[in-house]
Amino acid sequence: MIVVKGGVTTAKGFLASGVKAGIKKSKKTDLGLLYSEIPAVAAGAFTINRFQASPVKISKAHLKNNAHHAIIVNSGNANCANGKRGDMDALLMADYIAKIMGLNRKDVLVASTGIIGKVLPIDKIKNRIPYLVSGLSEKGGSDFAEAILTTDTEKKEFAVKMKLGSSVVTIGGACKGVGMIYPNIKIENHATMLAFITTDAAISKKMLEGALNEAIDSSFNMISVDGDMSTNDCCFILANGIAGNKKIKSKDGNYQKFVRGLKFLTSELAKMLVIDGEGATKFVTIDVIGAEHQGDAKRIARKISTSNLLKCCIYGEDPNWGRIISACGASGVEFNPSKVDVYLGDIKVLSGGSCVKGYDKNKAKRLFKRKKIYIKVDLKSGRSKATAWTCDFSKEYVEINSEYST
Amino acid sequence: MIVVKGGVTTAKGFLASGVKAGIKKSKKTDLGLLYSEIPAVAAGAFTINRFQASPVKISKAHLKNNAHHAIIVNSGNANCANGKRGDMDALLMADYIAKIMGLNRKDVLVASTGIIGKVLPIDKIKNRIPYLVSGLSEKGGSDFAEAILTTDTEKKEFAVKMKLGSSVVTIGGACKGVGMIYPNIKIENHATMLAFITTDAAISKKMLEGALNEAIDSSFNMISVDGDMSTNDCCFILANGIAGNKKIKSKDGNYQKFVRGLKFLTSELAKMLVIDGEGATKFVTIDVIGAEHQGDAKRIARKISTSNLLKCCIYGEDPNWGRIISACGASGVEFNPSKVDVYLGDIKVLSGGSCVKGYDKNKAKRLFKRKKIYIKVDLKSGRSKATAWTCDFSKEYVEINSEYST
Repeated sequence: MIVVKGGVTTAKGFLASGVKAGIKKSKKTDLGLLYSEIPAVAAGAFTINRFQASPVKISKAHLKNNAHHAIIVNSGNANCANGKRGDMDALLMADYIAKIMGLNRKDVLVASTGIIGKVLPIDKIKNRIPYLVSGLSEKGGSDFAEAILTTDTEKKEFAVKMKLGSSVVTIGGACKGVGMIYPNIKIENHATMLAFITTDAAISKKMLEGALNEAIDSSFNMISVDGDMSTNDCCFILANGIAGNKKIKSKDGNYQKFVRGLKFLTSELAKMLVIDGEGATKFVTIDVIGAEHQGDAKRIARKISTSNLLKCCIYGEDPNWGRIISACGASGVEFNPSKVDVYLGDIKVLSGGSCVKGYDKNKAKRLFKRKKIYIKVDLKSGRSKATAWTCDFSKEYVEINSEYST
Repeated sequence: MIVVKGGVTTAKGFLASGVKAGIKKSKKTDLGLLYSEIPAVAAGAFTINRFQASPVKISKAHLKNNAHHAIIVNSGNANCANGKRGDMDALLMADYIAKIMGLNRKDVLVASTGIIGKVLPIDKIKNRIPYLVSGLSEKGGSDFAEAILTTDTEKKEFAVKMKLGSSVVTIGGACKGVGMIYPNIKIENHATMLAFITTDAAISKKMLEGALNEAIDSSFNMISVDGDMSTNDCCFILANGIAGNKKIKSKDGNYQKFVRGLKFLTSELAKMLVIDGEGATKFVTIDVIGAEHQGDAKRIARKISTSNLLKCCIYGEDPNWGRIISACGASGVEFNPSKVDVYLGDIKVLSGGSCVKGYDKNKAKRLFKRKKIYIKVDLKSGRSKATAWTCDFSKEYVEINSEYST
């Protein structure tokens, strides 16, 4: 597998575009279209929030189809809590694309991100559809990646290539964050993280769903900016088969290889979301090892990643590791606290549940002055492990989120 | 029931004191003692954090006794993650009091609050024990309430009187917060909230435990400052029977009356913790009504109370209610989103899951400029309800917690 410069239009047969429809106050691009030239199999993972935005409902219904051609996305408005009108508007977004491109409405998937509880300006969207479609291009990946952004400060794109048999397969993707980020998406489940992945691999719908689930569980589902789960989170993958590899129909070697590539791609995209997290000044990696079950390791890593107190002291460059063990113990996981070791970088600060006397406090302070912080918790009870990524909690985060809607 | 000015020494037969032992850098009082002149029955509720501080372990063990005389408390150091040395130090705190006062060590309960992972300066404590004991007084409630504080800006005391039969029974209490506040304490369970309650009621240990559990479930366990659960949370109640009421031995009318009084007291103390929450500028009440089960109502109310995004927009006086429904849907509770109504004060903003067109946005903005904010969610699915209290999330919170240990 190699990393290549690119995004959603790097895999063969995918076109994309982005235009300004006037949905965002900022007047930046806010409407994007992703298109596969031939029918693609698709899988989607959605927020498990009980309040689901209209585009989530519509896309879930459309995904029952076997093949898809396009995904239309708007930013600046979540189209959530708009009742039947909202559902109708989400459906209209798909309809407009279907009509102009000669597709069935169910060939088109829909996503939205932005403020909740405001009526979607559907006429503005309708007016820009012709430009959106005529703008489709193999070079349009970046325009698409730009159009889906909200409070993000930069585009998030990534692509990899790998060999499956004698065929070269490409996977590319784009995503946006960067607040209300605590995804827990499943096939048929939940962020307002939006992620769009394209591949020219030939793969069955069932295997594509399996691969997406495996990939997001160790990537998007292991990041946190603020611990708030969105009504709009979704991650889509389209696979059009143009690469010509022997179609993946079972969990064979090629499937595993494809999953490794997809995992790497989604992890890199997920980390970009954290690095660009609202107000973030630090990037924090939390490894939990030595757990009895992987679920335990994940739960502890995620609980630590959402501790406001820990995130504040990371902002303040203060290695107050008591907040790590406090979060660890609050995870609800059963473990023996008198076995636990905790490391800040390579410094052991807790050994067998007890503070290490005379550890190098000045070195710990220096580690916390870096941009990248590494925390490790060893439960010493088994062989399972998990990694979570988070950012610090800054005054800028509070500023950004106290002024968003007005 | 009437409210009276007072605290832990308002009920008959209780004495208290507070001294400076030099544990806190601030050089404020940091060692407190609470004492019942005759043996009292006691109940305690503790953090469910897997990492439990040494005083929590010791107090849990001592509570197996049938009667108790004293509680010793230090602030400035949590005595947590100090291994066997920590356990020994917590035991020594009880021992010093027992020896000088002629008690058994198990008659004495212990609590600590402050930084995690620093060795307790037990010699400083030992040196001040004689002054702590000689300072015991019926007027010492406020000194005690002062000595237990950490980042609190003021003392938190409350007292009520009620008639049980022909006897006047008094319940008084003091507590401290005000960060790492997301208690979930149970008898044999978990905050660094510390709360100390005294009463002269005559009541059996079993009924006292039941009453405490009922009271904390609708008070301390329904507040949040930052969603971080401490290793040191505890709530103690001592009942010495001096009031001379007919001893409460079953869940009779007098028990119910006592519980109502205790609930009122713990609710008032809990609200004081929120009002004085770290960096708090607003006090938020969240009512969830119309739930099928009370557990559902509690879970939703608590989830809303811990939404960082909501708390940021309350700080910014921005009525961005989408964040209420997003948190509500992320609670994990099954409900029908298309039934839900949401109110800001008396303004209905969501009706049957859909945004109310043309609600008075200027009025909503005015409501959010007040010190006290009221939010109501009606699930319209049943008759159960719950109330949670929280504060806003301010830049000051981040400032306080980015600078705590250094």
